[in-house]
Amino acid sequence: MSKKNLIVGQSGGPTAVINSSLYGVVSEGLRHPEQIQHIYGMVNGIEGFLAGTVLDFATALPGSSLEKLKTTPGAYLGSCRYKLPESLEDPVYPRLFQKFREMNIGWFFYIGGNDSMDTVSKLSRYAAQTGSDIRIIGEPKTIDNDLVHTDHTPGFGSAARYVASTVREITIDANVYEKKSVTIVEIMGRHAGWLTAASALARKYKGDNPLLIYLPETTFDQEAFLKAVEKSFEKNCNVIVCVSEGIHDAEGTFICEYDSSVGTDTFGHKMLAGCGKYLENLVRSRLGVKARSVELNVSQRCSVSMMSATDQMEAVTAGNFGVQAALNGETGKMVSFLRETGTDGSYSMKCSLEDVNVICNEEKTVPADWITADGSDVTQDFLDYAAPLIQGTVEIPLGTDGLPDFVYRK
Amino acid sequence: MSKKNLIVGQSGGPTAVINSSLYGVVSEGLRHPEQIQHIYGMVNGIEGFLAGTVLDFATALPGSSLEKLKTTPGAYLGSCRYKLPESLEDPVYPRLFQKFREMNIGWFFYIGGNDSMDTVSKLSRYAAQTGSDIRIIGEPKTIDNDLVHTDHTPGFGSAARYVASTVREITIDANVYEKKSVTIVEIMGRHAGWLTAASALARKYKGDNPLLIYLPETTFDQEAFLKAVEKSFEKNCNVIVCVSEGIHDAEGTFICEYDSSVGTDTFGHKMLAGCGKYLENLVRSRLGVKARSVELNVSQRCSVSMMSATDQMEAVTAGNFGVQAALNGETGKMVSFLRETGTDGSYSMKCSLEDVNVICNEEKTVPADWITADGSDVTQDFLDYAAPLIQGTVEIPLGTDGLPDFVYRK
Repeated sequence: MSKKNLIVGQSGGPTAVINSSLYGVVSEGLRHPEQIQHIYGMVNGIEGFLAGTVLDFATALPGSSLEKLKTTPGAYLGSCRYKLPESLEDPVYPRLFQKFREMNIGWFFYIGGNDSMDTVSKLSRYAAQTGSDIRIIGEPKTIDNDLVHTDHTPGFGSAARYVASTVREITIDANVYEKKSVTIVEIMGRHAGWLTAASALARKYKGDNPLLIYLPETTFDQEAFLKAVEKSFEKNCNVIVCVSEGIHDAEGTFICEYDSSVGTDTFGHKMLAGCGKYLENLVRSRLGVKARSVELNVSQRCSVSMMSATDQMEAVTAGNFGVQAALNGETGKMVSFLRETGTDGSYSMKCSLEDVNVICNEEKTVPADWITADGSDVTQDFLDYAAPLIQGTVEIPLGTDGLPDFVYRK
Repeated sequence: MSKKNLIVGQSGGPTAVINSSLYGVVSEGLRHPEQIQHIYGMVNGIEGFLAGTVLDFATALPGSSLEKLKTTPGAYLGSCRYKLPESLEDPVYPRLFQKFREMNIGWFFYIGGNDSMDTVSKLSRYAAQTGSDIRIIGEPKTIDNDLVHTDHTPGFGSAARYVASTVREITIDANVYEKKSVTIVEIMGRHAGWLTAASALARKYKGDNPLLIYLPETTFDQEAFLKAVEKSFEKNCNVIVCVSEGIHDAEGTFICEYDSSVGTDTFGHKMLAGCGKYLENLVRSRLGVKARSVELNVSQRCSVSMMSATDQMEAVTAGNFGVQAALNGETGKMVSFLRETGTDGSYSMKCSLEDVNVICNEEKTVPADWITADGSDVTQDFLDYAAPLIQGTVEIPLGTDGLPDFVYRK
């Protein structure tokens, strides 16, 4: 059998472990020299591939330097937000497959979320249509945890651990003064509230902060929110409220839009502050108490300081598994996670494969029965689900400057 | 000699290591049972002490539980922002000293910044005036690093390490796309730019981000800033700009005020967005490029994820040293740090004492010759100064939930 080459790309927003998935693909590829000759990386995803920017891992990350991928955040290969045309008749498809042939590609891996799985779906359907034998596999990645047909996604555990530990620290920061205060913490998640829900893991004891948690899966009522804050003061004079960026009212208007409808900067442009800033102003204006807001922002997806060892290990495993599946002839699939719960309640995870076509256009939100009836908290079911995913600390190698030593593309 | 009691309080904003200073005071106190009977903590500083809220460390943190202070952020004892009256004739002074007598206090320690040193100054002057033999010592603490007569302050090193590593991660996050973008990172520091300057430590190679750094020590010119951003695109298509929250124009108007002068929320209240959000809008409007802003916010002072081992160790040492000094009869002093540089360039730190009266009303800013002529960067002198302070990682103990296990006041 003549050898072929493997190519892998990353797409969409980065996570703490998207490079661990990459490590999983490349390291497994290296274990099959009898079938795989070169292992290539697309620089800036499918868009970069079309532009001809490809690297060879043998020269880019030789020997043990590959290991550093596992503790480097962001997307080592660079990313893109390029959507392939819906019509498989589009001339971009023959162009792509011509390039695959020229590079003798036998296996194609794409690490990403919903949109990336759409790319995997289109490429694999085009391959089937045209009789190409390239094996095309999707590797899941998203802090949003919103992919269907998988228990969870690589990237979520580390982001959830970052959110939980940061909210715990913000709680401690808020508690130093004895005066009434409200802190609004704005967490990523436009449509799915998984990451915001993870703030509940911050609680150290019953009745601990965050006392209120609002997800985009429910309707956000400003008056009910203000009443809930007032009631929370009975438990703690410092109230922490965690909200998803995507919370919205009954009409579907995002709460963050309430602000931009009035604020304009000196250039007449709408000010795009988040819902946290809006709610901070609302609380201060209506309740007359000290209020502040904290937007956790990009650190949720790019910090390795709270990387979950479980998440990292699972990302590597998923990468390995995808390559094994492709070598076994699988294509048009996404690697998925099946949870196995032992009789003692212990957690373990098993990889499986799902048809990528049923994944790419769906979005998994937090189940309604994992949210309390008043929409201001999550239930024990969510905590039981999320807790195993944030376990374990990863030691991040330091450089001579005393700071995390990441690996960079030359 | 009859035994007396020691009391310690915390004041002002928290830091990652203010509890390490507390540990230093309490642990040293425990080593002198022949002189010190009880070790008390003021809950919520001098304000709480006046209200009678005091705890005994023997019951609050017995045995090895005291160790957890070293890895718990925030202020274990709680804090206050209470300024003692200027006139030592005010009746609060005899009230305070009456309480000291009732509690048989021989040694008083106050951990804090400028305002806390003002308290130490007033109490020690009142003690001198009235012939009280209570020894009153200040323990420095501030992420702002703005206390005079000390090489640096406990809290700065960990905050600087947090800023540097977070900016390095944000740089990686920005670099995943190949399209022009500007990220404004807003860092704490109203008058002193030490912490913003620490973002320069994030650079991994010459010409790395952050490409622009603006401190409140210089005048911020918006037009010059826009030109500098455009020029930076020649080096990197993704430009990271770090700014102190306190940057201001030539008239002394804070840049953040440009926003609040126009933005109002639905209740007619001024929107108080920071200068980062303002500059984000400025860049987007004027340069027509993708722009975003990240406010590092309270995590700068309350996160232990990037605690500097050097900073932690020095905070403990300062606490120890203060108690030894008080037992030796010193009073009205603040513990200060003297830097010692070995012939091989190695760093070491020695504790000393400074008259608290010359510290409490001064503010140390970044020297003008540590800032480049165009005010958009810091020099090698600053890097040489700051680098030793961020060295070493501290292992944070985890609880059964897999998250940092902090110690809480009952």
